[in-house]
Amino acid sequence: MEEKEKLALKDRIHEIIFEADTRFGRKIDILIMVMIILSVIVVMLETVSGLEERFKNLFVILEWVFTVIFTIEYVLRLYSVRQPWKYATSFYGIIDLLAILPTYLSFFILHSQSLLVIRALRLMRVFRIFRLGRFMRESRLILRAMNASRAKISVFLFFIIIVVTIIGAIMYLVEGNYENSSFTSIPKSVYWAIVTLTTVGYGDITPTTHLGQFLSAVVMILGYAIIAVPTGIVSAEIIEQTKEIQNNSQACRYCSREGHDDDAVFCKYCGNILNDPENS
Amino acid sequence: MEEKEKLALKDRIHEIIFEADTRFGRKIDILIMVMIILSVIVVMLETVSGLEERFKNLFVILEWVFTVIFTIEYVLRLYSVRQPWKYATSFYGIIDLLAILPTYLSFFILHSQSLLVIRALRLMRVFRIFRLGRFMRESRLILRAMNASRAKISVFLFFIIIVVTIIGAIMYLVEGNYENSSFTSIPKSVYWAIVTLTTVGYGDITPTTHLGQFLSAVVMILGYAIIAVPTGIVSAEIIEQTKEIQNNSQACRYCSREGHDDDAVFCKYCGNILNDPENS
Amino acid sequence: MEEKEKLALKDRIHEIIFEADTRFGRKIDILIMVMIILSVIVVMLETVSGLEERFKNLFVILEWVFTVIFTIEYVLRLYSVRQPWKYATSFYGIIDLLAILPTYLSFFILHSQSLLVIRALRLMRVFRIFRLGRFMRESRLILRAMNASRAKISVFLFFIIIVVTIIGAIMYLVEGNYENSSFTSIPKSVYWAIVTLTTVGYGDITPTTHLGQFLSAVVMILGYAIIAVPTGIVSAEIIEQTKEIQNNSQACRYCSREGHDDDAVFCKYCGNILNDPENS
Amino acid sequence: MEEKEKLALKDRIHEIIFEADTRFGRKIDILIMVMIILSVIVVMLETVSGLEERFKNLFVILEWVFTVIFTIEYVLRLYSVRQPWKYATSFYGIIDLLAILPTYLSFFILHSQSLLVIRALRLMRVFRIFRLGRFMRESRLILRAMNASRAKISVFLFFIIIVVTIIGAIMYLVEGNYENSSFTSIPKSVYWAIVTLTTVGYGDITPTTHLGQFLSAVVMILGYAIIAVPTGIVSAEIIEQTKEIQNNSQACRYCSREGHDDDAVFCKYCGNILNDPENS
Repeated sequence: MEEKEKLALKDRIHEIIFEADTRFGRKIDILIMVMIILSVIVVMLETVSGLEERFKNLFVILEWVFTVIFTIEYVLRLYSVRQPWKYATSFYGIIDLLAILPTYLSFFILHSQSLLVIRALRLMRVFRIFRLGRFMRESRLILRAMNASRAKISVFLFFIIIVVTIIGAIMYLVEGNYENSSFTSIPKSVYWAIVTLTTVGYGDITPTTHLGQFLSAVVMILGYAIIAVPTGIVSAEIIEQTKEIQNNSQACRYCSREGHDDDAVFCKYCGNILNDPENS
Repeated sequence: MEEKEKLALKDRIHEIIFEADTRFGRKIDILIMVMIILSVIVVMLETVSGLEERFKNLFVILEWVFTVIFTIEYVLRLYSVRQPWKYATSFYGIIDLLAILPTYLSFFILHSQSLLVIRALRLMRVFRIFRLGRFMRESRLILRAMNASRAKISVFLFFIIIVVTIIGAIMYLVEGNYENSSFTSIPKSVYWAIVTLTTVGYGDITPTTHLGQFLSAVVMILGYAIIAVPTGIVSAEIIEQTKEIQNNSQACRYCSREGHDDDAVFCKYCGNILNDPENS
Repeated sequence: MEEKEKLALKDRIHEIIFEADTRFGRKIDILIMVMIILSVIVVMLETVSGLEERFKNLFVILEWVFTVIFTIEYVLRLYSVRQPWKYATSFYGIIDLLAILPTYLSFFILHSQSLLVIRALRLMRVFRIFRLGRFMRESRLILRAMNASRAKISVFLFFIIIVVTIIGAIMYLVEGNYENSSFTSIPKSVYWAIVTLTTVGYGDITPTTHLGQFLSAVVMILGYAIIAVPTGIVSAEIIEQTKEIQNNSQACRYCSREGHDDDAVFCKYCGNILNDPENS
Repeated sequence: MEEKEKLALKDRIHEIIFEADTRFGRKIDILIMVMIILSVIVVMLETVSGLEERFKNLFVILEWVFTVIFTIEYVLRLYSVRQPWKYATSFYGIIDLLAILPTYLSFFILHSQSLLVIRALRLMRVFRIFRLGRFMRESRLILRAMNASRAKISVFLFFIIIVVTIIGAIMYLVEGNYENSSFTSIPKSVYWAIVTLTTVGYGDITPTTHLGQFLSAVVMILGYAIIAVPTGIVSAEIIEQTKEIQNNSQACRYCSREGHDDDAVFCKYCGNILNDPENS
């Protein structure tokens, strides 16, 4: 009987922390989200030299408050799931651990500035928010479109990496031999080519020779046409996904399958008429 | 009887100032628009150090002329509406007040440069122009498309803010420890990440280490694919909205099918006449 | 009889210079295009300090050769058209005159560097090339799409100008009071806002205060979503135009009207069947 | 009989090196790809001043290992093809030769840094990877879309080049006369115009006069609308190509209508079965 109660408690905790279906569960979810965001803001402000000295004590107290709460949450998560090990080694399980570990480790390792910055990664936990009802539909559409265009985008990015390396090597040949040139090595030239082709254009490395400026002008004009490709791929995919979601409404009355075009008269799966004009 | 005349006058003023349906009302509207734009240009030129000394008197006179006219307009608006308080506390009511207040306040507060700049916000009043007939259709389409894609864009921007914060924290870890580094804090690194991912690329903060340059190259290449998402969302929405406006819910009376072009006379599916000119 | 011969000659010249339908006419057209491009390259190279001294004589000779040829062409154009005055005052007529005038005027006005640069505008004459057969179809599609989206793009750009002015005024308030600030006036801040929102990002003016950097980050993130709008508008229009051109092939056999959808069975204008399956 | 064996051997080698249909052939293909990428990374690292001194010997040894392997591969390719000369003078044949030649030539020519950089071009050999099965479909779609939009993009880029030259000439007129101006010649101004219109925005050349900044703001705002054109063209084309691939020319045998989805069993227009499984 006690075992049963334990299981019921576990399920109850699981429902509150992991799911967002009940009203109370959703409130807890949002509360934790807000605390994650607040704790990351504290981590960010800690690195600002002016603020660090003035509010050092406040920052330390807040950090421990957040860490204790996140620790309790982590333990409850471990306790409530059926397979604790599976959760602990999952992506979110590791992120949840990384969110609390650095604060405890800062006891043992002194002046571990870089260790504390890792706490900023706890912001990744916020990605859970996209599973909440309100954002569900929108993020699913975007994720679907990105998933569907992943193969094409990968091929395109692979192509860009090759192009960028070749452009970098050529620009190193053209610009590298001059004194005070910023193109000191091929990797640096490739970095320049990426900065240019993506139209970021920092200006930390710029061509100074006539030939170099002419070549980079050609690269930019080409980049003008190339930048259109990923946009085109994703646009086509989003239009496709939007259509698919819209077409879901019409279902065949004989085989119950969906996905028919707007102008279809007969079900494309079983051949029966879709919307009988006499009866409807 | 006097009450009635008053109401008629109120209505007449309301028609002239608020609406743009009558020819005279439209002329007054455009006149006020032009004066708003001129007054904002004066505010802008006042801040240019060279011009300020030379044309100081002209600027002051022009400013007072505009302020008096806008004050008369504001009083007439307050007088002509049925619920003055509702107008005064509405978005445009506050903007209209903010457009005239700073000039009067400059009497009491000396050297209030920043106060005078607020007058530039009176440009917001120009947004009223989009309600004019000529721009109505176009701005409605854009607003509709932006409205329809608002949820998706919000989810995407929220996603970007998380990504940008994580990138900023990582770059602070990589670049922050070196001397003369521009990555002095996480907020600054996040600012750099936004400048890079949006392809603005000022170049005021740039990575100097090999690892930093490699990571920022990865960020740019990723940004290349990511920038395609909002464009794809808005494109899909505009295409959708354009279609909806074109297919203005015209349905055949014989086969009940929709999707006919604006200039179609006969149903393209069953061949029957669409809008019987004799009966309609 | 002589009058008739004159007219025939005029027509012959007109055909060669203005039209590109005959083989000889097309050859002359391309020859003139090539000479325009060459002459503009000469004008460009003249301004390069290193080359100017070395090849001064060559540049002067080439310039006169081009000017004489363009003058002959201009005179022939004036002679061959029916209404010389109408051509002379048309857009291309003025461009054609501007292309030859500066060289002659350089006789009377000494050291007129800026006058000679105007010759670069003769490149505008090359726009005539888009009327040639090969480019006709493509440029017509682009021009049509741009024409159709002109109203929407205008409304959008007008909206951008207002937004950019307001952002500029706010940034002047935030950044303008600090020493060594680059935001010295509102027009300069507006220039910065345009540089930022269009993602050009020169980096000649950058925010230095925390609030300024935060606000500009917000501007960039917003610009991220805003930049998608014109792309969406033009994409939707090009897709529309492409469809219209494709749908041109199918013509009704009864009323000869075109523009039917791919899946149309009956003509939407006269109600007759489109492609009789029994006869075709 | 020996001749036959030779031919069989040739075919076998051809299959392994040129084709990627057999499992062993694909493995060899991927191995060579990996080695090309590794060898290019070595070439890139050689130019980094810090690494060059430390790992000089390792780099030389690795370079010779790669060169010998690529030489064997090149000889096998020459041996196995039916028309060795045709392969040797083809695009890939020349790239394959350029990939090995510089290392051998470095014996005879001393300190030939620039010669060795040419080896980076051997990365072009990796383009062969796009013919592998996995990337085939995606790269074909992108190539098709780019091919189909080539004419339109060309016309657009030609238009951009003219516009950019005219803007450059005007900006040289406006900004060129001032001291310390970066607009020292028209070609440099054209370079600036390209940097600005493509939104790269290095910031190495920026306008300093009021008129210059105003004009460049106009250029940016225009560039905002212009950048949408190639994206629109490519988007429309990719949407078109995606549709074409999906509607893989499947026509109903009863009503001859096309446009059925891949998973359709019955014609959506007449209700008859699409691909009779018994007969096909």
